[in-house]
Amino acid sequence: MLEELAKLSRSPLGNPTRLAIALYLLSRERATFAGLRKALKLTAGNLEFHLKALEEAGIVRTYYGFGRRPRKFVEITEDGIEELREVLKILRKVAGDD
Amino acid sequence: MLEELAKLSRSPLGNPTRLAIALYLLSRERATFAGLRKALKLTAGNLEFHLKALEEAGIVRTYYGFGRRPRKFVEITEDGIEELREVLKILRKVAGDD
Repeated sequence: MLEELAKLSRSPLGNPTRLAIALYLLSRERATFAGLRKALKLTAGNLEFHLKALEEAGIVRTYYGFGRRPRKFVEITEDGIEELREVLKILRKVAGDD
Repeated sequence: MLEELAKLSRSPLGNPTRLAIALYLLSRERATFAGLRKALKLTAGNLEFHLKALEEAGIVRTYYGFGRRPRKFVEITEDGIEELREVLKILRKVAGDD
């Protein structure tokens, strides 16, 4: 189990905030930056920081949509969904050991 | 569930390495610094860093034992066990949602 946790500490989702972002995105086609920020009660700077790391790791992609006003959208990638499944599997193993 | 993850991100155990340390200690009366380092495959500096945070949060206590040579021992506290239970409960909720 310690090996599983070592794997988790190397994952871009091995952090509660990033895990929350991925779980939030999993159930939605896409989210706005503002909506994500509100739901997760994060500062803009903090959310930016985590999204940048997740985007660099290929877990999420962000893009701008232009309607009445420009908005930043975020969505989870296929790789992100796969990584999330992997992390949840590890957490089930760890948490089930109680 | 997002609230649960926010709680996790505020916990001293909301980090895979610290969670691994606590789980390792849970099943033992005490561990040596060297044994913990070996089991978790951490550098001494990294382990020191995490133990300091865990000790400040009241999750573990460390002390020196003097036998043939001085050794640093680590053990989980009662508060640490309680916090670990709380974190595992959150992880079960999160991971069970798959």
